[in-house]
Amino acid sequence: MAILQIIENPEKHRWPSLLKRPVLQAENLDNTVREILEAIKKGGDEALNSYSVQFEQSAISDRIVSKKEFEEAEGKLGEDLKKAIRQAKINIETFHSNQLAPEAEVEVMAGIRCWRKAVAIERVGLYIPGGTAPLFSTLLMLGVPARLAGCKEIIVCTPPQPDGSIHPAILYTAALLDIRRLIKAGGAQAIAAMAFGTETIPKVYKIFGPGNQYVTHAKKIIQQEGIAIDMPAGPSELAVYADESAIPEFVAADLLSQCEHGTDSQVILVTSSRGFAEAVNAALELQIESLPRKSIALKSLENSKMFLLKDPGIAMDLLNEYSPEHLILACRNPEIYSTGVRNAGSVFLGNYAPESAGDYASGTNHTLPTNGFARAYSGVSVDSFVKKISFQQLTRNGLQCISNTVTEMARAEGLQAHAAAVEIRFSTPKTQ
Amino acid sequence: MAILQIIENPEKHRWPSLLKRPVLQAENLDNTVREILEAIKKGGDEALNSYSVQFEQSAISDRIVSKKEFEEAEGKLGEDLKKAIRQAKINIETFHSNQLAPEAEVEVMAGIRCWRKAVAIERVGLYIPGGTAPLFSTLLMLGVPARLAGCKEIIVCTPPQPDGSIHPAILYTAALLDIRRLIKAGGAQAIAAMAFGTETIPKVYKIFGPGNQYVTHAKKIIQQEGIAIDMPAGPSELAVYADESAIPEFVAADLLSQCEHGTDSQVILVTSSRGFAEAVNAALELQIESLPRKSIALKSLENSKMFLLKDPGIAMDLLNEYSPEHLILACRNPEIYSTGVRNAGSVFLGNYAPESAGDYASGTNHTLPTNGFARAYSGVSVDSFVKKISFQQLTRNGLQCISNTVTEMARAEGLQAHAAAVEIRFSTPKTQ
Repeated sequence: MAILQIIENPEKHRWPSLLKRPVLQAENLDNTVREILEAIKKGGDEALNSYSVQFEQSAISDRIVSKKEFEEAEGKLGEDLKKAIRQAKINIETFHSNQLAPEAEVEVMAGIRCWRKAVAIERVGLYIPGGTAPLFSTLLMLGVPARLAGCKEIIVCTPPQPDGSIHPAILYTAALLDIRRLIKAGGAQAIAAMAFGTETIPKVYKIFGPGNQYVTHAKKIIQQEGIAIDMPAGPSELAVYADESAIPEFVAADLLSQCEHGTDSQVILVTSSRGFAEAVNAALELQIESLPRKSIALKSLENSKMFLLKDPGIAMDLLNEYSPEHLILACRNPEIYSTGVRNAGSVFLGNYAPESAGDYASGTNHTLPTNGFARAYSGVSVDSFVKKISFQQLTRNGLQCISNTVTEMARAEGLQAHAAAVEIRFSTPKTQ
Repeated sequence: MAILQIIENPEKHRWPSLLKRPVLQAENLDNTVREILEAIKKGGDEALNSYSVQFEQSAISDRIVSKKEFEEAEGKLGEDLKKAIRQAKINIETFHSNQLAPEAEVEVMAGIRCWRKAVAIERVGLYIPGGTAPLFSTLLMLGVPARLAGCKEIIVCTPPQPDGSIHPAILYTAALLDIRRLIKAGGAQAIAAMAFGTETIPKVYKIFGPGNQYVTHAKKIIQQEGIAIDMPAGPSELAVYADESAIPEFVAADLLSQCEHGTDSQVILVTSSRGFAEAVNAALELQIESLPRKSIALKSLENSKMFLLKDPGIAMDLLNEYSPEHLILACRNPEIYSTGVRNAGSVFLGNYAPESAGDYASGTNHTLPTNGFARAYSGVSVDSFVKKISFQQLTRNGLQCISNTVTEMARAEGLQAHAAAVEIRFSTPKTQ
């Protein structure tokens, strides 16, 4: 039944158990993934080929997407979809290019100049799930900031369909981004290939993108070997805070848009009004009937709850404790309310900011911290594709200003050579 | 012998093996650390106490540093050292406060406003090594950005001396930063305590700081459980690029300052001149004699090399391939040369910017990516203590502008409910 359980004024000590996330884990996940990683590390392309046959029912002769495949993709897509992808790309570029502002240089003391410079990570790997749901929107969300950052090599791995082809929307999007190294490979084996390198796939320094449990577990393991990843993964979620100014039908539609993602999705509604909660439940029952992914949505509604909380401050405390990936504030004066958000991935204000807007086209990134990771992690941005290198230049006088500071501290830490490196610069004749 | 091996014009395919980092790994490291983590997770403070007796020869009755201990610390330090710590703190604050600049809001299209806001991670844990080398400078490097970011709870764990006391320089520095939750705990068990929480130590969302192999391995494992860490750890290193304008004695002193850190430290000198390389070797031999940590420095010189490369472009390629934690450009026009740096943690320009300056007092952070991680990771900054939450507010007209884009893309991805969440907003009467 498409009805959410309503919990009224739960005591604070009950919050953690009420806000638990669903846990799905394939049996033997860790062993299976480690086996795959090991096999690719040793066997390279050959191992990759045998996994393709095993998992994708596809014997791929040429793993790298050809120029011809790129060219043919355009003709296979409707004009409306192409226009939509181009519009989304422009908006994502507009929002993300704002993240490129250089940091000012600082003259810390006279003769001591320090600054940081954002420098692109040279080689990055993007994983784009394919198959039944070709996530070309995720390719935009990762490819646009990678391009803006100036990454020199951008490798994309995406699983082919059984006939060895890639969905034309993915090809079209890659071409728009001028990403030409698109590799037909999926699953943990694709992550392994980008982490260790194979004969055809270069080793990258950082891997981005969502995927099934095998993919996300593989990312977790290769991170331990020193390859950076965008963020840890977990089930996706949406929390909505609504007062009486919200529209139950809109809220129900937003909840369902999250619920259709997967059976481990979760939604939370926090409201002060029982009447509103019941109206949302009624709208859920009605709306779910017309969804092609109804059975998935029903499952994830089972993981989900409504909370009745009269006090907006306590409501915000609960939402911050939950740390949702997506948070919709469907209330009066959402700008004021939003200042209380301490933990969330992306926040949507008002009645006309559905999660779908940010998922596709408003310009913000949709690769966000799930599973409560919003407490410490940010979503993907241009920052994710650069590292900030610090620089400093000191004159002789500048160094002189801090020479006692350095030598005192170095000696107190027992690091005599650190002190000596400063002292020697004042014990020899002046140099330029 | 304190002499570095000189390698002339190595072919590019030999670089990876020539630039290998030393690997030290305690036997049974993984098992030992996992055992400790498990014990703390289950046993809390009691388990922590039994490890203290075992590893630190210290039965600690009160693990939390008292007000009295803080007060007494000040009297135990010389005025010069206190002044030095205060000066360093001011410079680090000056440089890091520059990182707080808010990002501008973007009007992506008419009626679509998007922005990001940096919000402090609420609870962070800092690990500060103690014992023979009390790293109060690291407490400044982590505590200053944590304070600037606005972290509400800052927990510091540091191992006590056998008599149960903490070095007064650590206490003085913590008090300067107004950090009062200083906990006497060291090793992997301290990391576990901050990751899982115990009766006296709160669970934190992100853990920072250096440590021995047990500490860094523990951080690696708890990261897999969803607790964020500052960055992966590895042996520390310095690379110097020097032309004839450099002073061999200065360069030798800088190399030794890196070498005294630990036996797994590594230094690399790249120069075009054999004469210069030999002069540095002569200076190393002379200077090493007076170092209290001579035996450590000698060991790490064994891990180290000099490269003779005539072409400055190739020299920079080699340095970028190495991706050093610290890079000194002791050459003419280092500003110009520095634009070629693609992979490094922190770069020092000219003859008067020794690594020691940045280690202590110029204002830049000294918690930097080692072990080649500079290819994808940045050093610690205010950014490390915040997450950037994205926000968006759309008017009805704003959403209308992108409604076709969203619905086209959502349908092509097979996500009907995503499309419906936009459509429903235009199928009901206008709402505010």
